[in-house]
Amino acid sequence: MKIAFLGPHASFTQLATAQLFPDGELMPQASILDCFTAVETGEAAKAVVPLENSIEGTVSMTLDYLYKTPSINIEAEAVMPIAHHLMIHPENSVEDIDRIYSHPQALAQSFHFLDTHYRGIPRQDFSSTAAAAKYVSENKDLRIAAVANQYAANLYGLKIINRNIQDFEQNHTRFIIISRQQSKYDNSKLEFLGEKSGMLITLPEDHPGGLHQVLSVFAWRKMNLSKIESRTLKTGLGNYFFFINVEGPWEEVLHGNALKELESIHADVDFLGNYREFLLES
Amino acid sequence: MKIAFLGPHASFTQLATAQLFPDGELMPQASILDCFTAVETGEAAKAVVPLENSIEGTVSMTLDYLYKTPSINIEAEAVMPIAHHLMIHPENSVEDIDRIYSHPQALAQSFHFLDTHYRGIPRQDFSSTAAAAKYVSENKDLRIAAVANQYAANLYGLKIINRNIQDFEQNHTRFIIISRQQSKYDNSKLEFLGEKSGMLITLPEDHPGGLHQVLSVFAWRKMNLSKIESRTLKTGLGNYFFFINVEGPWEEVLHGNALKELESIHADVDFLGNYREFLLES
Repeated sequence: MKIAFLGPHASFTQLATAQLFPDGELMPQASILDCFTAVETGEAAKAVVPLENSIEGTVSMTLDYLYKTPSINIEAEAVMPIAHHLMIHPENSVEDIDRIYSHPQALAQSFHFLDTHYRGIPRQDFSSTAAAAKYVSENKDLRIAAVANQYAANLYGLKIINRNIQDFEQNHTRFIIISRQQSKYDNSKLEFLGEKSGMLITLPEDHPGGLHQVLSVFAWRKMNLSKIESRTLKTGLGNYFFFINVEGPWEEVLHGNALKELESIHADVDFLGNYREFLLES
Repeated sequence: MKIAFLGPHASFTQLATAQLFPDGELMPQASILDCFTAVETGEAAKAVVPLENSIEGTVSMTLDYLYKTPSINIEAEAVMPIAHHLMIHPENSVEDIDRIYSHPQALAQSFHFLDTHYRGIPRQDFSSTAAAAKYVSENKDLRIAAVANQYAANLYGLKIINRNIQDFEQNHTRFIIISRQQSKYDNSKLEFLGEKSGMLITLPEDHPGGLHQVLSVFAWRKMNLSKIESRTLKTGLGNYFFFINVEGPWEEVLHGNALKELESIHADVDFLGNYREFLLES
């Protein structure tokens, strides 16, 4: 099965995609838009794109494209702790390093470690952590190291000399699987975190209390929201849509009636699916 | 006055910062965290960081650091349309181009233009649009072009051969000015869009309807929300804070009473300021 993902090869999204689809034929894409287009045109069956906290891709684009392409649904969500490792060419040794390459944000996220343990060694910005790892693998003589992920180390045959060098422990990235189907992804090999529903809600007009009215639909039913994010519509100032996650498995009466009530107050709802959330390894 | 901003030199954030602080001493920072640290330690008086849609920096970090550093306030917000231009060394000409360099997301955002007008010319990922522009300025003989912004063209003396090559017209980035003071930024030379209040609200516990209760405080007062975004706390699953924007100028009775009512329902509020929003040039 063809699975598009936000590339390049060995990006964090590929690290996630490889765990979600170990037998998939992975197709790297240059942008989040390209991932959506690949699914929309049928070039790929599904795509994996970041939803939160990515250093690769502007994740607000994911919400915007979900809004723009109502035919696309969410099949699953996956959360991955961010882990940066320092790696070198396998034939080199730690003492050799005289420059460290990576994506500027990966270097920034590992700043304190690098400053403590590799003080004075210059750092060089690269377009991605993966490209930095590839460059290290191709340039044994340059005595360089890369900050990148486990997948990049495996793919390019690099030696990891320091693990988990990120300054903050609990950073994570969230990904979603998107497709044109309304199927529900499952994988017994991954840690299951729970079920949730995702929906995009547009208010009939921008008036004070509009969002409050929408949330009433969930509040009096004691349905718990775990994420809410507003995005400006491109049609003008003061027009918004909201991405909302409601916790819990699908219950026909509860969810069905909530959706009907949203309709009755003239909110426009794009229901993206009821899906499972999984924990991935970093 | 020293103004930190998310670098590198000639980043979109610098383009914004230069308009907001034309007489400021601009200090580029490697990460959003470094911008916050510079303000917290007093190394810089203020900082400019992206709040929405940036291709440089994970903007959810901005919300997280606002939450982690309650001493930091918002002085203003600024919105800038994103404009990418194609530029070359001033001594070269259009016919010479045999490679185009830029940040992967800037190349992706200009994909259709480049594919139509420069079909077959290879593109090369660079760590930032600014770094690509700098590289072009330093390598006249390489016959390369860069996709970057107006500021980079000026800074590195490049010739713009195609303007506004981005595929979508209405993309924009939002920035905020942060500082330790509670002062309100103003600038009569910029287009004024309106006033708003920003606040971070933490619910006393994660229970269904908690957010609905908080929004009631604003809804019955007919205070209009223009942005709401939930962020997971790092303390465990199911704990959230919300970033909320309330439209309009400060009104002592209205805003004061709303804040008191939030207190009375045990919501924890970090009031970030009542501030002006401006439109910047791209």
